[in-house]
Amino acid sequence: MHKINIPPFDIDAAKACENRLLSLAKIPKSLGKIEDLAILLAGVSGKALPSFTKKELVLFAGDHDIALHGISGTRQEVTAMQVRNFLRGGGAINAYCRTAGANLTVVDVGIKADMSDALGLVHKKVVHGTKDFSEGPAMTRKEAEKCLQVGIDMAREKIASGADLLLVGEMGIGNTSPSSAIAAVFSDLPVRSLTSIGSGINSIQLEKKIALIEQGLELNKPDPKDPLDVLAKIGGSEIGAMAGFILGGLSKKIPVILDGFIAVAAASIAAELFPQVKGLLIGSHISFECGHKFLLQRYSIPTYLDLGFRLGEGTGAALLCPIIDTSTRILTEMATLEELGIWHPQATKGS
Amino acid sequence: MHKINIPPFDIDAAKACENRLLSLAKIPKSLGKIEDLAILLAGVSGKALPSFTKKELVLFAGDHDIALHGISGTRQEVTAMQVRNFLRGGGAINAYCRTAGANLTVVDVGIKADMSDALGLVHKKVVHGTKDFSEGPAMTRKEAEKCLQVGIDMAREKIASGADLLLVGEMGIGNTSPSSAIAAVFSDLPVRSLTSIGSGINSIQLEKKIALIEQGLELNKPDPKDPLDVLAKIGGSEIGAMAGFILGGLSKKIPVILDGFIAVAAASIAAELFPQVKGLLIGSHISFECGHKFLLQRYSIPTYLDLGFRLGEGTGAALLCPIIDTSTRILTEMATLEELGIWHPQATKGS
Repeated sequence: MHKINIPPFDIDAAKACENRLLSLAKIPKSLGKIEDLAILLAGVSGKALPSFTKKELVLFAGDHDIALHGISGTRQEVTAMQVRNFLRGGGAINAYCRTAGANLTVVDVGIKADMSDALGLVHKKVVHGTKDFSEGPAMTRKEAEKCLQVGIDMAREKIASGADLLLVGEMGIGNTSPSSAIAAVFSDLPVRSLTSIGSGINSIQLEKKIALIEQGLELNKPDPKDPLDVLAKIGGSEIGAMAGFILGGLSKKIPVILDGFIAVAAASIAAELFPQVKGLLIGSHISFECGHKFLLQRYSIPTYLDLGFRLGEGTGAALLCPIIDTSTRILTEMATLEELGIWHPQATKGS
Repeated sequence: MHKINIPPFDIDAAKACENRLLSLAKIPKSLGKIEDLAILLAGVSGKALPSFTKKELVLFAGDHDIALHGISGTRQEVTAMQVRNFLRGGGAINAYCRTAGANLTVVDVGIKADMSDALGLVHKKVVHGTKDFSEGPAMTRKEAEKCLQVGIDMAREKIASGADLLLVGEMGIGNTSPSSAIAAVFSDLPVRSLTSIGSGINSIQLEKKIALIEQGLELNKPDPKDPLDVLAKIGGSEIGAMAGFILGGLSKKIPVILDGFIAVAAASIAAELFPQVKGLLIGSHISFECGHKFLLQRYSIPTYLDLGFRLGEGTGAALLCPIIDTSTRILTEMATLEELGIWHPQATKGS
């Protein structure tokens, strides 16, 4: 793995952004979380008045043999089918990216099927599907490292070609199971309280899913002090790549917008590997997955949308783009209270 | 007032939209409120696959002499100053409209100051400020009717020039007071439970605000069975115009996106005038104003954003535009499960 250095939150840039917001021709703090978001983006990017003109959403795809137990709403082959659909432009994430003004790149990091004929796909396959972690380790430590590196490399490549905002998404039938398992390892909570129905399963399937995750944790005994061990033993290829992607972005002060539960599970791996990551993470939406809520809280990740999304693909991250654009646009396009000759008692508080 | 006929919710269009959503290449209903929004837009517009290409945000401005009691965070002159700022493009709403891809029109329906020199402003002044309703009626019945008509005319004008989505915003220092008063008239709740700090006031000011609203209700005795009486006695010019605008849009099956508390108070006037309006109203965001929450619930108005906005101007409505675009874009730009050869048990439920 390349050497990674995560620059700290830039307090000066954040403070300057906050002061700018307080000076604008509006009731101070009246745009609520839009203002918080602008300040966070300033602190992460190191720019007092951030603005993002080249947004890149990278979607990492991989399979999970734990899904073969019938604990997912859809069959395993759908991962590859949907990836081909994304490449043709027919997925939800394609439509979302068009509204977001974000470029979409799809990366095979661990799809089970041979995808070598898929045009437009970025071929970085580390494994042919992650192994069933209820029966043994999902990956070797070496494979987990490789997945992280795929993500780091993708982030660096996008940044080198001018990306100033990264968004992360995934496709992988069964990947809420490793996400719940990861959440359980980094907490003292029972698996049951961190596991939901994913893409849509019945209560019998949910019980089986919980039992398999518990079995996998008992068998593999991942060490919470060793995040790479956790990723290898109970994680997934695309979760590792997403963790690397987050680290790759933040190492260059490029904000990385997280999506739902799986992206946030990847962020937890990144934050356990590099504790400086905490405070730099930017969520987009909150889903009904209980493990998602737990991880958002544990790693202090703010979210801005509560629309009942449970699709993944990066849809939540993409929908945050126009909200990000609005939050940064006000910084430079609005008149100030001073220019209007209006004085407000709160407006000078921050200066 | 022109004859107004409000066409009912188009159940066939809504059902066809829902079936389309269930057929798409994703987990059924996995896009949550985005799907609900698409279905609602279909039912209101009467188009199974709605799409909006000409969005018009109309901002109605007016003053309120109740603000002269010092119960607002800002002085009364700020209404006119901000309106001039909007005309120069320096307001929050200007920045929001740019991201939304919405055209902004600013209408003077009741600003106290003479605005005849303001270029770009639509001059429809009915009153030079709404009178202090704690001391007598805010407007005459005739004036209230004229305000409604201004809104109806603005909606019809925009629709005649091609608008397919209307958004409504306002500017008026002091206008949370009439909004709380309206909410109180249409409920059995005490004024106290429907009144918050508006643009930002201290607890002494808040007590005074509550007392003045109570005094105004006692003095004017607006008749809840006669919404025009309510609008005239304790309403405001821009609230009347917004109510008319909502009616003007819905009468032509053009969805009208509401903003915050004041827009929703206007919607309550519209819904009390024409009960068919209920079920056709589309909110954008929820603010901390307790009267706002009450009205949203009473008139079954859905919202999609909870970002702590308390500015008005139409900012919440404008921010819904990219979310609307996303909700409608998926209808026509995604592959179907059938095209992908994927079958999902829930996917055929609606057909």
